[in-house]
Amino acid sequence: MSSGKIPVIELFGPTIQGEGMVIGKKTMFVRTAGCDYRCSWCDSAFTWDGSEKESIRLLTPTEMFQELMQLGGDNFSHVTISGGNPALIGQSMSEFIDLVHANDCKVGLETQGSRWQDWFVLVDDLTISPKPPSSGMKTDLSILDQIIQLLDPTKISLKVVIFNDEDFDYAKMIHKRFPGIDFYVSVGNANPYVEGDISSRLLQSLDWLWNKVIEDPEMNNVRALPQLHALVWANKRGV
Amino acid sequence: MSSGKIPVIELFGPTIQGEGMVIGKKTMFVRTAGCDYRCSWCDSAFTWDGSEKESIRLLTPTEMFQELMQLGGDNFSHVTISGGNPALIGQSMSEFIDLVHANDCKVGLETQGSRWQDWFVLVDDLTISPKPPSSGMKTDLSILDQIIQLLDPTKISLKVVIFNDEDFDYAKMIHKRFPGIDFYVSVGNANPYVEGDISSRLLQSLDWLWNKVIEDPEMNNVRALPQLHALVWANKRGV
Repeated sequence: MSSGKIPVIELFGPTIQGEGMVIGKKTMFVRTAGCDYRCSWCDSAFTWDGSEKESIRLLTPTEMFQELMQLGGDNFSHVTISGGNPALIGQSMSEFIDLVHANDCKVGLETQGSRWQDWFVLVDDLTISPKPPSSGMKTDLSILDQIIQLLDPTKISLKVVIFNDEDFDYAKMIHKRFPGIDFYVSVGNANPYVEGDISSRLLQSLDWLWNKVIEDPEMNNVRALPQLHALVWANKRGV
Repeated sequence: MSSGKIPVIELFGPTIQGEGMVIGKKTMFVRTAGCDYRCSWCDSAFTWDGSEKESIRLLTPTEMFQELMQLGGDNFSHVTISGGNPALIGQSMSEFIDLVHANDCKVGLETQGSRWQDWFVLVDDLTISPKPPSSGMKTDLSILDQIIQLLDPTKISLKVVIFNDEDFDYAKMIHKRFPGIDFYVSVGNANPYVEGDISSRLLQSLDWLWNKVIEDPEMNNVRALPQLHALVWANKRGV
């Protein structure tokens, strides 16, 4: 990678953030390429599995912001950085965030909490989503501890995607470890590549998850949400 | 009404808050009887149309909290007061809120912003939902101004239910009037009494609303959400 450039695989919007701490908010999306994880059910595996590597472009922070302006004009006030894992990107991301802020927009970030970057402290809403057992990944809790300790608790949240009972128990363990951090559980999308309407399957999963939360006194303070974009737009890309 | 008693028509939970500023949160519900409005599409018309007047019970704050404890045990940390319009209830509601707080639980309130009560300042998350033209009601903006001026802006939000273009324009007017208050738009449920699955109709409405928000630079900062409980549980009562 050239110094100062960021590997971008998708850049789109304006759209609506469908999940997590700013669910329902209008936002632009920047999706970086590359990930240190290989989650079995990853809904953005094209960012790391090589299947779309010809779409990866190395852009400067200025080029990224210019593209967002061309797409969105004055029609947004929030930019979400997602991946892949954007935490693989170094100092150039801090330049990008400064540019977004200079244009009176806020910045959201989605990352799994496996790596730290100094520019995390610039982010306005930071979702840390450690991956549960069904992903096949293993959480390094000491790194997660360090990351959360360095951040302003009012600007961050934890989010765990849940597919089964074992994932739910993992979510409880994470929630107990960080009781002062806003905590979200989210319904997993078991097949992110199938076409057609997937809403009834996802709503059944949400019903299941809600009942788990309702019955569990250790989960009184969590927020249990679906991925609204998957309910409304199914698995369509670029929205 | 006996002094100190509150007309309660429903009291249930634990369940999940399906909409607004604490969407996805586990909560108990207390629904008071009586309303100063008669919205054409009200999804809780039984609170004011006389159809279930034999269900209305006059309870003291202590009796209300005891029933919540019997239903929920240690399985909740949040109580939502809804109606009808709970703002018709006077000082006895402040006693109830004190009881809830004394038991380490938070209190949410849903009211339309047509009446003030001093106990509003005790509420932890207060949703003010002025009603758009499709309701058939007329908003008294000077009362709304006074109410919002008296409240801590970090603890409140505005929410407008939207059925059509005219409602959307009304929502924009309200949002512009109170730019510092978190603003939610919500998909209306055109038939809150039909049985069976209504999710595809509601998701189509959310798709429509999202596109309206996406295309409108004056709505960059709003959050556009569905009623999740209607998606998951359709029009079932008592959940």
